[in-house]
Amino acid sequence: MESSKKYFAEALGTFALVLFGCGAATIASVSQSGPEGIGLLGISLAFGFSLMVMVYAIGPISGCHINPAVSIAMMAAKKLSLKETIGYVLSQCTGATLAAAILYVIAIGSDGFVMPEWGLASNGWGDGYLGEYNIISAAITEFVFTFLFLLVIFGTTAKIASPLMAGLAIGISLTLIHMVAIPITGTSVNPARSLGPALFSGGEALRQLWLFILIPIAGGLFAALVRNLFLED
Amino acid sequence: MESSKKYFAEALGTFALVLFGCGAATIASVSQSGPEGIGLLGISLAFGFSLMVMVYAIGPISGCHINPAVSIAMMAAKKLSLKETIGYVLSQCTGATLAAAILYVIAIGSDGFVMPEWGLASNGWGDGYLGEYNIISAAITEFVFTFLFLLVIFGTTAKIASPLMAGLAIGISLTLIHMVAIPITGTSVNPARSLGPALFSGGEALRQLWLFILIPIAGGLFAALVRNLFLED
Amino acid sequence: MESSKKYFAEALGTFALVLFGCGAATIASVSQSGPEGIGLLGISLAFGFSLMVMVYAIGPISGCHINPAVSIAMMAAKKLSLKETIGYVLSQCTGATLAAAILYVIAIGSDGFVMPEWGLASNGWGDGYLGEYNIISAAITEFVFTFLFLLVIFGTTAKIASPLMAGLAIGISLTLIHMVAIPITGTSVNPARSLGPALFSGGEALRQLWLFILIPIAGGLFAALVRNLFLED
Amino acid sequence: MESSKKYFAEALGTFALVLFGCGAATIASVSQSGPEGIGLLGISLAFGFSLMVMVYAIGPISGCHINPAVSIAMMAAKKLSLKETIGYVLSQCTGATLAAAILYVIAIGSDGFVMPEWGLASNGWGDGYLGEYNIISAAITEFVFTFLFLLVIFGTTAKIASPLMAGLAIGISLTLIHMVAIPITGTSVNPARSLGPALFSGGEALRQLWLFILIPIAGGLFAALVRNLFLED
Repeated sequence: MESSKKYFAEALGTFALVLFGCGAATIASVSQSGPEGIGLLGISLAFGFSLMVMVYAIGPISGCHINPAVSIAMMAAKKLSLKETIGYVLSQCTGATLAAAILYVIAIGSDGFVMPEWGLASNGWGDGYLGEYNIISAAITEFVFTFLFLLVIFGTTAKIASPLMAGLAIGISLTLIHMVAIPITGTSVNPARSLGPALFSGGEALRQLWLFILIPIAGGLFAALVRNLFLED
Repeated sequence: MESSKKYFAEALGTFALVLFGCGAATIASVSQSGPEGIGLLGISLAFGFSLMVMVYAIGPISGCHINPAVSIAMMAAKKLSLKETIGYVLSQCTGATLAAAILYVIAIGSDGFVMPEWGLASNGWGDGYLGEYNIISAAITEFVFTFLFLLVIFGTTAKIASPLMAGLAIGISLTLIHMVAIPITGTSVNPARSLGPALFSGGEALRQLWLFILIPIAGGLFAALVRNLFLED
Repeated sequence: MESSKKYFAEALGTFALVLFGCGAATIASVSQSGPEGIGLLGISLAFGFSLMVMVYAIGPISGCHINPAVSIAMMAAKKLSLKETIGYVLSQCTGATLAAAILYVIAIGSDGFVMPEWGLASNGWGDGYLGEYNIISAAITEFVFTFLFLLVIFGTTAKIASPLMAGLAIGISLTLIHMVAIPITGTSVNPARSLGPALFSGGEALRQLWLFILIPIAGGLFAALVRNLFLED
Repeated sequence: MESSKKYFAEALGTFALVLFGCGAATIASVSQSGPEGIGLLGISLAFGFSLMVMVYAIGPISGCHINPAVSIAMMAAKKLSLKETIGYVLSQCTGATLAAAILYVIAIGSDGFVMPEWGLASNGWGDGYLGEYNIISAAITEFVFTFLFLLVIFGTTAKIASPLMAGLAIGISLTLIHMVAIPITGTSVNPARSLGPALFSGGEALRQLWLFILIPIAGGLFAALVRNLFLED
């Protein structure tokens, strides 16, 4: 498969992840009128389902990382070259930013819309952010869950595993991570997913962005290390 | 497979999609008494699950488009003849209309029932419609999500993909679209799904129907164009 | 496979369906203290998930009908002998009754428990029953949804379908039926599921039981007729 | 596969089960601010999804018991040696305890956090515990559901079943058990899952721990007996 097609797939996949995940959180999570909003459970399903759907749609093309922490961990596990890793990460950040832009344009079409602090489902922590957890809880959460996320990816795509079910398991593992971590950090485990909304939200979301770039990458690299030492197939 | 069997399957599938999806929204989305209603999350799952179930039930017969925007995009991707496309679209509209009729008959069996503006889960936008988004947001939403929906369909049914999981991925992608778009347009991405309820609801639902016919078809055609240019297998 | 093993499987499967489905509705659907109850969405998932799980657990033994309307329709489609149909139905009714008994014993272990009219998630209609729909809506609902349910079963288990995904599709179709029909009849489409709770609830639940025996069987038989005429593989 | 790798997998899997399941219940089940909490439905999905994901991730390594009641029942069904059973159980208890420790550290990072009686989603019963069911209901519930859980495991992993779908069915069966039993005991059916939170919660959670060790093991052993007598493949 030529690289340009892979980059297009990664951009499209990350576009879908952010549009669906952050879109559900921004537009449908609380009731505006009529039926109850989708709540934390709905947001969690939106992120995980997006990943699952894209694994089956673009996985055969690019592997469907749609997450710089995954691509960098794959490079550390010697499954992706440095050059392709850079291409993947740039594509992912482009797709995420484009999705946040479209989401912003759609959201302002509602009379009542005012961009809140940490708008468009930006990640964050501390005073004023959901459950108001401190930076230590935020960092542990992002590290441990990205670590677990990558172990699930390595495990379900190992030679002895069932490739058909990997997309289901990987997608649902992202749902699980959100089902715990939304009140703490909004759940990143994905620098590109944090970048897009932060660019349009600005303020605290942009000032806190560094943690959601560094910690998920660290958690992913640690998982690659554990895999290389103990679990290599 | 003879065409009449395919048309029967498409009518049956669209009948099920509208009966389950619009039925869940009309009858069970808010609490009448006893447990909480299914809310926006439940409605989103109802539409996506219906599509998923029908892909496995009738997919082997007709491909389970149950959506004129899908059939027309398939024609543009040279996977369906003009004649069959017309047959598919008519069958889909028939099934959707029949489902709306049965839904109407069931709904009026509850003493408290009064047909609201945009009744039977009709699609719409603007003043008085759920989140009160304007027509620009409505059009962008329907265009972008039908485009993404068709790309998921093309991707998951490509030769290099896993045919067994396509129904799961396609169905869940429709759930994802609803998880973002219900507050904006109620979520169409499917002219037949919009037609049925609008015929029985009348009023604004019928006056706004044109957008839910034209825009999903445009979004689907654009996806077919992208596929023909970049992703053909 | 000897018949006694099949009957054991059908009794076990129907036991699980009623214990999980009616149990979720009776014990966890509304908040007692702490987190929100599972609501109509949770009850719908409980019934559908139970069927799905049992299809994969006992399907290879008995086919996992766990529903007299299914077994009778299978007999009409010439897939089950009269003798086995009788054995299946008796096993299903036994399993459902046992589950209702255990559920009753568990429920009375909570101080606050008072058996309500239509207790243990009995089916019903009319004044005082959930959305208070009339008998016509109740009968149409049970007929149409059992008809659709059987068509999904016939479609997903046809020779041209994917046997691996049939359990998923059939289970989720039962969830869909509940997502529309709970406010109307509580959703039967299964005489055994209605029998168990009605025996322990008595009163109106027992007086209205006839409809949930006759109509689902009629809907199933009509589906078998349609299949025999149009869809036979 | 060498035993040390299996033990590592079991510890990792039980770590994930408790971190996701008890984490969702502790951190995200009720609304802190913003969207609705995930409620009983979300907690139920968190436990079942965790098991499902880990079956696909570590099942090929260790079988993914991540539950002493399962390992002991497997020993009774002659599928695991006494030595490995001990190794499995110790690994599971270690993983569960580590998860509870991390969960505790994360939870105290929120200003408002006060460890409640039965904290970190500990199991229990009686006055002050959720639905306030008595010990008889608690014991019946844990026995019957662990029995059913093991029968589902035996059924879906039998030679005549579909191995690909076993993880899905087994995981969802754990969700179903939670969808009924959370108001009664919080749902254990797993001594390791009960141990971790009880160690950090202390008080009543620790005093009531014995039931969640003995009864699930008894229920699992009874299922192994039924299987050995009636269902052996």
